[in-house]
Amino acid sequence: MLEVYNPAMRIGIAQINSRVGAVEQNVEEILSRISEAKQAACNLVIFPELALCGYPPFDLLWGSGFVEKVAGALQEIARASQGIGVVVGGLSSQPAREGENLTDPSSIIDGAGCKLFNTAFLIADGRLMGAEEKLHLPPFDVYDEKRYFTAGAGAKVFDLSGMPLGINICEDLWVEDGPVDVQTSLGAELLINISASPFFVGKAAIRRRICSQRASASGVTIVYVNRVGGQDELVFDGGSFIVGPNGDLLCQAPYFEEGVFVADLGCVAPISPPHESPIQLIRQAIVLGIRDYVRKNGFSRVIVGLSGGIDSAIVAVLASEALGPEAVTGVFLPSEITSEVSRQDAVEVASRLSIELLEIPLAEALSSAQCTLPEAATGLAAENLQARLRGCILMTLANQSNALVFATGNKSEISMGYNTLYGDTVGALAPIADLFKTDVYCLAEELGDRIPQRVREKAPTAELRPGQRDEDDLPPYAVLDPILRKLIEQNSSREQLIAQGFPEAVVDDVLTRYYRSEYKRRQLPPGIKVSPKAFGIGRRIPITHGYRG
Amino acid sequence: MLEVYNPAMRIGIAQINSRVGAVEQNVEEILSRISEAKQAACNLVIFPELALCGYPPFDLLWGSGFVEKVAGALQEIARASQGIGVVVGGLSSQPAREGENLTDPSSIIDGAGCKLFNTAFLIADGRLMGAEEKLHLPPFDVYDEKRYFTAGAGAKVFDLSGMPLGINICEDLWVEDGPVDVQTSLGAELLINISASPFFVGKAAIRRRICSQRASASGVTIVYVNRVGGQDELVFDGGSFIVGPNGDLLCQAPYFEEGVFVADLGCVAPISPPHESPIQLIRQAIVLGIRDYVRKNGFSRVIVGLSGGIDSAIVAVLASEALGPEAVTGVFLPSEITSEVSRQDAVEVASRLSIELLEIPLAEALSSAQCTLPEAATGLAAENLQARLRGCILMTLANQSNALVFATGNKSEISMGYNTLYGDTVGALAPIADLFKTDVYCLAEELGDRIPQRVREKAPTAELRPGQRDEDDLPPYAVLDPILRKLIEQNSSREQLIAQGFPEAVVDDVLTRYYRSEYKRRQLPPGIKVSPKAFGIGRRIPITHGYRG
Repeated sequence: MLEVYNPAMRIGIAQINSRVGAVEQNVEEILSRISEAKQAACNLVIFPELALCGYPPFDLLWGSGFVEKVAGALQEIARASQGIGVVVGGLSSQPAREGENLTDPSSIIDGAGCKLFNTAFLIADGRLMGAEEKLHLPPFDVYDEKRYFTAGAGAKVFDLSGMPLGINICEDLWVEDGPVDVQTSLGAELLINISASPFFVGKAAIRRRICSQRASASGVTIVYVNRVGGQDELVFDGGSFIVGPNGDLLCQAPYFEEGVFVADLGCVAPISPPHESPIQLIRQAIVLGIRDYVRKNGFSRVIVGLSGGIDSAIVAVLASEALGPEAVTGVFLPSEITSEVSRQDAVEVASRLSIELLEIPLAEALSSAQCTLPEAATGLAAENLQARLRGCILMTLANQSNALVFATGNKSEISMGYNTLYGDTVGALAPIADLFKTDVYCLAEELGDRIPQRVREKAPTAELRPGQRDEDDLPPYAVLDPILRKLIEQNSSREQLIAQGFPEAVVDDVLTRYYRSEYKRRQLPPGIKVSPKAFGIGRRIPITHGYRG
Repeated sequence: MLEVYNPAMRIGIAQINSRVGAVEQNVEEILSRISEAKQAACNLVIFPELALCGYPPFDLLWGSGFVEKVAGALQEIARASQGIGVVVGGLSSQPAREGENLTDPSSIIDGAGCKLFNTAFLIADGRLMGAEEKLHLPPFDVYDEKRYFTAGAGAKVFDLSGMPLGINICEDLWVEDGPVDVQTSLGAELLINISASPFFVGKAAIRRRICSQRASASGVTIVYVNRVGGQDELVFDGGSFIVGPNGDLLCQAPYFEEGVFVADLGCVAPISPPHESPIQLIRQAIVLGIRDYVRKNGFSRVIVGLSGGIDSAIVAVLASEALGPEAVTGVFLPSEITSEVSRQDAVEVASRLSIELLEIPLAEALSSAQCTLPEAATGLAAENLQARLRGCILMTLANQSNALVFATGNKSEISMGYNTLYGDTVGALAPIADLFKTDVYCLAEELGDRIPQRVREKAPTAELRPGQRDEDDLPPYAVLDPILRKLIEQNSSREQLIAQGFPEAVVDDVLTRYYRSEYKRRQLPPGIKVSPKAFGIGRRIPITHGYRG
């Protein structure tokens, strides 16, 4: 048994799924979790970053009265804090000093009339015991915190029933020069980090490593509390944990699961870090992302166009896992060039999942649309027309049944613009938009026999012209995906890619198609982020530009 | 004649249209403008903010080698600077100190390995005479400068042939506590502000007012140099100017026009601020935005679905102005419920513009699509199907002729979700997406008799069901638009709107539909920003949220 400083302290890690902007609902949830923590005899219950308003609220923060509403909710938390300490993330503000930055009308519009802080509150026995503003505001990737917040002034230490306690927020722990040193030099013996840290593959291990380094460097215990839940493109994976003063892992909360997880700081033994399969975590992330997107937006049914290929099969499997097979309708939309193999495979996928399957032949609608045109479409225009009619029909079915369409595109084809805007791109959500095609195959393995063997093994095709195969139109995925990963995740230049041994002609082709298809990505539905750099809100590339790597 | 300090100084204001990311092309343009300024016997030629890489480069800044390429271009400018001073906007960097902010893999990805500055360079006679980094980085609206840049350390004064000169960048002049005071206290007699300031209605007057205040408060002359040109959603309007030490306007360069505009500081008399019609400026902004979007992306032809209504008529007029009538094809797509009046009006618009008009009846394709469905669509699903088939056909025509489709939606309908995603929303660009319907009518007046009288006067309708009229489905635009303007531009809350006298039921209906339709706005083509707050990159509202104002 590990010796820690306060054997009496029982901590509740409240890994909750706050709703962005729904302050009343979040307060209700928080009160219920405080009550749960009290019943479990916790001395302290800890909620994530911005638990009161959800993360990320983006420009909702500038809505008149939004900040006041979130700040006002603290009163209710205080009333529920008799006999328990509560750490909770919310907002605090102070007016900007007169004349500051108010001459630009845009800055007035955007709420720069006050300074806003991303704040952790410590509340106990009905009173506010302390507040710590976030010091380090991440401006990169999906985080835009410098757009909204002012950095806090400095690391403080609070007293909770004799325990010197430091609190910091998410990024504050990640940076080398964060508040941890100051807080421990001021005598903190327990550090709490409240986070809203979205999932990507491998991030959980990085979080633990950093916390472990900070804990052992400072000789303190760190409690890391992360939120859980899907929010548009982001999935927060929870996975909160505690590390002891020598860096050992003492407690690990589950991933993707809401709840109050209790640990007695005085009597926890070190545990081994959990074995985490990247592809299992990806699967869980997408499933939770789907479930929360659909349900939080008030829907329950989804429609997936099943082509007989692997991408749509995987989306159907994940949708079924998230919502139940009865909530998913597969739609097979064969044209005259669709093969019998595709039909059999679509039928087989639907059958293995026990989902409804509609078959809607496209020939007649396609032929009418062609006759309507002054000149029948050929080549790419005809391929696109076929894909767009499918999109039309899927959307009509969705409108008829109050369902959402899921787009089935993967990151490789989205990167190359190998898709039809308003065709296979239509949908409310694109569940596997952040998976390269080679990742799609790994996920298919993980999903086991719900993906038929033939679907996994046959050559991928958009099946928009006879005999079409992806690898006739694109570099082989085994070559393409590593190039794209370096391009997107590491911002590799043309020269770097060529120096790394990728063929010059392939690199040039990829760069040209990648940059030329930005206009399509601008109009895609949100995809679920599972990589360090996804298309969407965390990546901003102009449509019009002359950069070619 | 106004007395100024250096009667010998002739200034060239190089109001150029830099291409984002096309460094070589920008350097070529800058060298040509330097040569032009030399021929005009200028002592100093001034280029806009980030002239070397274009504004806004967004995440292209993080591309490996991007910063080095931009920094390297200074050598070429230096070589061209014999006998002339050059002020030009570019990038400078210095490595982050070791260990700083590199533990988060996202920050590594996003190029946080170095500190990056938005910098103005003063070059003369082949040498770098000085560099001033931007101090105030706007994080709001469409500006994300804190995402990319580190704030400069401080205001300096340079010597150019005996003239003490202060240089600052865009926002530096807007803030009350900017570098102007320091620079004048250090002896600057001439201040230069280089900007990349996008257009919105009324902004030009604000710029002049602020410069005039700063100039008269400090007793210096200010040269304000803005870029020109369309860049995706943004249009930079140029309109550079000079104000003298008592705040008088001394020189005003034209709006929306590239060129080197020359002023002799020693012999300019005060002029009156130009009369600026807001609606004329909007028209010019949209025309330039269209032209640059189409041409910079390598296209020359556009397709506009002409419904016979005012929105599509205006888009056709503006497209014709931007690209010439021979570049525009109108497409009239009547269904069985389209009225003869609509046909006549579409024909009349095309005829007045001398643009090609195609008529493609929708009935057969619509009937085939309906027959294809397990159950024929009715109600909203049928209306949407009709709109989406139109979208399909427009996109096919565009694919067949290498043209771009223009979406014709206005801000009122986009705000309310009163449009069909993948239907009337399809397109590469949405030229009037930032105009409320009431603004659309003003613009129609401005466009004169190219918009037939009946088109201006008839009740607006989506014409997706018999007898449909916008004002049966929406509040009257005279009520709706003021609510939307307050909601979008001033972040007004439900309570504030009601307190301002808008009917509670209308406010609630507007708020519900406004928030519920965010998913559609996420997938819209870029619109051209003409208001202080446009949908698009400068506004980030979650799709999934529980805020209702």
